[in-house]
Amino acid sequence: MNFASDNSGPTHPKVWQALTHADQGYAMPYGNDPLSLDVAKRLRTLFGVPDAAVVLAATGTAANSLALASLCPPWGRIYCHEDAHIEQDEGGAPEFYIGGGKLTLMSGAQGRFTAQTLADTIAATQMSIHSMPPAVVSLSNLSEAGTLWPLADIAAVVEVAHAANMAVHLDGARLSNAMVGGGYSPAELMQTGLDAVVFGGTKNGLPGVEAVILRDSAKQPELERRRKRGGHLFSKHRYLAAQMDAYLTDDLWRELAGAANDAATRLASALGEDTLIHPVEGNQIFCRLPRVAHQRLHDAGAQYYLTPDVPLRGDAHELLGARLVCNWATSQDQIDAFTALI
Amino acid sequence: MNFASDNSGPTHPKVWQALTHADQGYAMPYGNDPLSLDVAKRLRTLFGVPDAAVVLAATGTAANSLALASLCPPWGRIYCHEDAHIEQDEGGAPEFYIGGGKLTLMSGAQGRFTAQTLADTIAATQMSIHSMPPAVVSLSNLSEAGTLWPLADIAAVVEVAHAANMAVHLDGARLSNAMVGGGYSPAELMQTGLDAVVFGGTKNGLPGVEAVILRDSAKQPELERRRKRGGHLFSKHRYLAAQMDAYLTDDLWRELAGAANDAATRLASALGEDTLIHPVEGNQIFCRLPRVAHQRLHDAGAQYYLTPDVPLRGDAHELLGARLVCNWATSQDQIDAFTALI
Amino acid sequence: MNFASDNSGPTHPKVWQALTHADQGYAMPYGNDPLSLDVAKRLRTLFGVPDAAVVLAATGTAANSLALASLCPPWGRIYCHEDAHIEQDEGGAPEFYIGGGKLTLMSGAQGRFTAQTLADTIAATQMSIHSMPPAVVSLSNLSEAGTLWPLADIAAVVEVAHAANMAVHLDGARLSNAMVGGGYSPAELMQTGLDAVVFGGTKNGLPGVEAVILRDSAKQPELERRRKRGGHLFSKHRYLAAQMDAYLTDDLWRELAGAANDAATRLASALGEDTLIHPVEGNQIFCRLPRVAHQRLHDAGAQYYLTPDVPLRGDAHELLGARLVCNWATSQDQIDAFTALI
Amino acid sequence: MNFASDNSGPTHPKVWQALTHADQGYAMPYGNDPLSLDVAKRLRTLFGVPDAAVVLAATGTAANSLALASLCPPWGRIYCHEDAHIEQDEGGAPEFYIGGGKLTLMSGAQGRFTAQTLADTIAATQMSIHSMPPAVVSLSNLSEAGTLWPLADIAAVVEVAHAANMAVHLDGARLSNAMVGGGYSPAELMQTGLDAVVFGGTKNGLPGVEAVILRDSAKQPELERRRKRGGHLFSKHRYLAAQMDAYLTDDLWRELAGAANDAATRLASALGEDTLIHPVEGNQIFCRLPRVAHQRLHDAGAQYYLTPDVPLRGDAHELLGARLVCNWATSQDQIDAFTALI
Repeated sequence: MNFASDNSGPTHPKVWQALTHADQGYAMPYGNDPLSLDVAKRLRTLFGVPDAAVVLAATGTAANSLALASLCPPWGRIYCHEDAHIEQDEGGAPEFYIGGGKLTLMSGAQGRFTAQTLADTIAATQMSIHSMPPAVVSLSNLSEAGTLWPLADIAAVVEVAHAANMAVHLDGARLSNAMVGGGYSPAELMQTGLDAVVFGGTKNGLPGVEAVILRDSAKQPELERRRKRGGHLFSKHRYLAAQMDAYLTDDLWRELAGAANDAATRLASALGEDTLIHPVEGNQIFCRLPRVAHQRLHDAGAQYYLTPDVPLRGDAHELLGARLVCNWATSQDQIDAFTALI
Repeated sequence: MNFASDNSGPTHPKVWQALTHADQGYAMPYGNDPLSLDVAKRLRTLFGVPDAAVVLAATGTAANSLALASLCPPWGRIYCHEDAHIEQDEGGAPEFYIGGGKLTLMSGAQGRFTAQTLADTIAATQMSIHSMPPAVVSLSNLSEAGTLWPLADIAAVVEVAHAANMAVHLDGARLSNAMVGGGYSPAELMQTGLDAVVFGGTKNGLPGVEAVILRDSAKQPELERRRKRGGHLFSKHRYLAAQMDAYLTDDLWRELAGAANDAATRLASALGEDTLIHPVEGNQIFCRLPRVAHQRLHDAGAQYYLTPDVPLRGDAHELLGARLVCNWATSQDQIDAFTALI
Repeated sequence: MNFASDNSGPTHPKVWQALTHADQGYAMPYGNDPLSLDVAKRLRTLFGVPDAAVVLAATGTAANSLALASLCPPWGRIYCHEDAHIEQDEGGAPEFYIGGGKLTLMSGAQGRFTAQTLADTIAATQMSIHSMPPAVVSLSNLSEAGTLWPLADIAAVVEVAHAANMAVHLDGARLSNAMVGGGYSPAELMQTGLDAVVFGGTKNGLPGVEAVILRDSAKQPELERRRKRGGHLFSKHRYLAAQMDAYLTDDLWRELAGAANDAATRLASALGEDTLIHPVEGNQIFCRLPRVAHQRLHDAGAQYYLTPDVPLRGDAHELLGARLVCNWATSQDQIDAFTALI
Repeated sequence: MNFASDNSGPTHPKVWQALTHADQGYAMPYGNDPLSLDVAKRLRTLFGVPDAAVVLAATGTAANSLALASLCPPWGRIYCHEDAHIEQDEGGAPEFYIGGGKLTLMSGAQGRFTAQTLADTIAATQMSIHSMPPAVVSLSNLSEAGTLWPLADIAAVVEVAHAANMAVHLDGARLSNAMVGGGYSPAELMQTGLDAVVFGGTKNGLPGVEAVILRDSAKQPELERRRKRGGHLFSKHRYLAAQMDAYLTDDLWRELAGAANDAATRLASALGEDTLIHPVEGNQIFCRLPRVAHQRLHDAGAQYYLTPDVPLRGDAHELLGARLVCNWATSQDQIDAFTALI
């Protein structure tokens, strides 16, 4: 019963097959092998931007930081949700890659902010030589609350951002879950006007690969220079490419995200609507359960995070928040075992 | 016939086994899994520094940069060979991670510099508030000329560096080859007084793992912070650890490096002593062959780099330099096929 | 009638005398002249830290950034008021000098935050390898609301910060005004436990000099290296030292701040208690006046900022906020002329 | 007898007059005062680039670093003479402002390098994703050997640089001396095609002002952002502008440089042609004198630097190198007193 994170789950067998297949014999290093070149093309096609700048990176933090640094000058300002991964969980990587930068935080229900909040926050930003100027808006899809962004909401944010000469970045660590949940395709997503997307694989069954996709093809050289000097250009790049190749083949990304989302839906249903803190729109559940239930689950070895992190011992009936994350391999047995304990 | 680089070769089967074995079920992310913790301990033991600061990274550029940044202030100066990988081939990553820094270059035969050259170069450095102060000496073992550093030479460099209050870093992308070639152990290497070692695996049969080992245990938190903000802390860290685990088990690193070195020795022998530019002390050969031989090899599909890179067409008898790199999987058939064409 | 800023006022005649006196003949450059060395000693004595690390800088932004960078690692977090100059008005200089960093903002009445707010904010900060760790607390005295920090409040903040292993920085662009207003000396200020103080002169009658004072004497070399590589080590350093020399002689800083504070007190009194937004504790007044008064003042050439900046034309009776800043040269005539127009 | 540096000399009286005149009453801060705006215009006219990007800075290190950072990406490479001030004497400021960068050093007689050397050095630079790409060529005029660059030589360097898509920066700490010595005007200088010029004042009679002039007008906002976040935007900017205003009025820069150059010519003549290491083309003399002469001078209080710095006691007849720098205020008496002691 491991619901701690989708990055604690196993790799899909098809990905291992692709990796060992890619390992046959010799290959040009540093992304000049045929598989790496082909994967970039397939990503451009999938996202409907035939000349997009594309690189692969092995971690989401690297991918987000490379994308943001390509959009934001060292003295620029990024607007994001106060719970955003780039603010809370990347150890200062965006600021490091940008060479400075500042994140201005916005509130918003269920991990999202509205176009109006963005407009108001921009309007409240002092605009002078003394202040860091607006450069980028960043949103996470799925959000940190597990919710997804409808295309119309993304388009509204893009409109406000572009009107203020800002670029828009999407942190897509769980983008497959969002697209499956929202019923839209990568190309439809890009049609909202997004400037940069990170298409995550690590949380969806791959050992470690994320794709950075920038609409502006002129940024390809800069993106590659930044990746190299970040130490993220792999010599044996075929092992990144093979993962992404398997991910794209027969829409494996969709299949895996669908399985994870379905598991979450079933688990949420078993928990009951009234326990939910946020709507379940992907593979994450935020719910409240009595402490006594947490104690039983913990004693049975269930793994997941309390939000916030509070002592497990105390008033038995107090409701404590929890995050439960499903992944492609979450079995009905796990779900049943978990719910049986509540 | 691929002698282009040891990073274009395949992964050893035992490493795949370790990876798929590590993939069983769930594991704590971000290096908190048991395997990751165990591998760090084994590295400390192997290098004879029981409390060394240790992290894994997926690329040599990242590993070198993390180590250097932990030793050099943003205004500090690093002394290295003019052909060093950190100077020539890392796209500015050391400067990026250091947040500035300057590399001061030294000449030296066969990819090495002497303690005397180091002492002279330090003495020639202006020491004032206007100049960047000495901070680190970096050497590569194997060197960029394929030669290895005898322990006494390393100790002499360390002595000069420490007398000038500088730390010493060893770029060990091919350290296994050097240690096997030189007949010394990791612990013996550290006894020279080195402050930082990168123990490479990527060029010796692993998909992509390097270990950073810092003698100063107090630097563990800084090293981890730097890795995180460089985007190099993998969520599925077990896949890095599993590679290193396999590498350490039954001295696989030694077995693979030995095979690569042997192949190089046999190839060099077949080429003949008089073709060699540098002595063959590891798995790399630098030799001169007539252009006509290069043409035949090229037509037969052999892959390797000319040094310097010159046109393949021209005077048939002119001697052109080449770098030939063997790896653990280089077969006698490849060697025979190659030499048959000369 | 210029109440726009204390940095738009003239230089005190004694400072010009000191400058032209310092200009006699030749002097060693880069701060090695006798005057520069003497001024550093006098600052250490004045602040009661005989071995403090001390440098001069020509701008407050430089001084703050040098101090903060000496206290905060590139991955560190600074807690400050949401209106702090380092957050709002320094164009990203702190982040630039730190090489990253993140400012976490706190609210608080009248430009100050409480020790409790600080404690709560620290407690709410996620502490893990994924989050940027607390490093520095920064407060401004005078605050951006023109109020001063009582010593007991500073001491309470220092206590919370030190308990969390954080250093405390004081932005003292208007520190003279605060110390005169609060009736405490530089040495008494330091006894609260502050780790770094910027002692401003530019807003108090000098052409452009601020002193950076760090309690930890071991930081002197780092501070000087940072100043040099920021381009802030002046070759003709005697012109900085002469300003500070005049400032310290016969407590000129106290005399000028006293004159500015007195002028503000008289102006506030003339405006009337009920117009004031914040208490007047130094040389700044935040008040509300009807738009029609602003219009008359504007037409008569009075210079000052509306807060927030709103159109001058509109409803005559609406109360609009304004910031009025007095300096050492503000005359009673100016005050009378200003108040006569209201 | 102070020949240590032109930055140890006094300020010209006209500059003090301009400063105290600028000090009358109030002025808008941060460069928005009329004098600051006017000075920028006059600089554009003087250099014959009507829409050039222009800012003032208080130190040469800041001015060079701002210019270079506006021309060089963080992963870019700057080619300069091995003795260049940006390499030897700026404490890492260029790398700090660039956010990385690498200086590739060229040799060359008398402080200059040739267009051919530049072309050869570019040709020898590895061009790949692994190497830092060429971005800027920087030359110093006067050079660090006191020699000046003829316009034709600058134009030849510019041609090579532009052909390689590199920008050209001129460090003009002693540009007035070079232009007077070479008999060319600022506009003629710019006609060589230079992209960035630092026009120094600090070494030529000003307390501390340098102008940064970039040909590309589109870089004005970036240049201002970089200045601000470097802490180099002065609130009391009129004190910088007043210095430059005096400098430009009636070609004071030319008058002062002429006086300094003349003094150097007379001193060199008195020393004798055979003592000179480099031709005297500006206000600096590099000469060799017997140790005994240095001893007499030193005992008499003469101040200057030995190059290299060697012990003053030793073989009386050994010839020791020295740098003698004249400034606008160097008197014939000083010259006579100096030469009388040899």
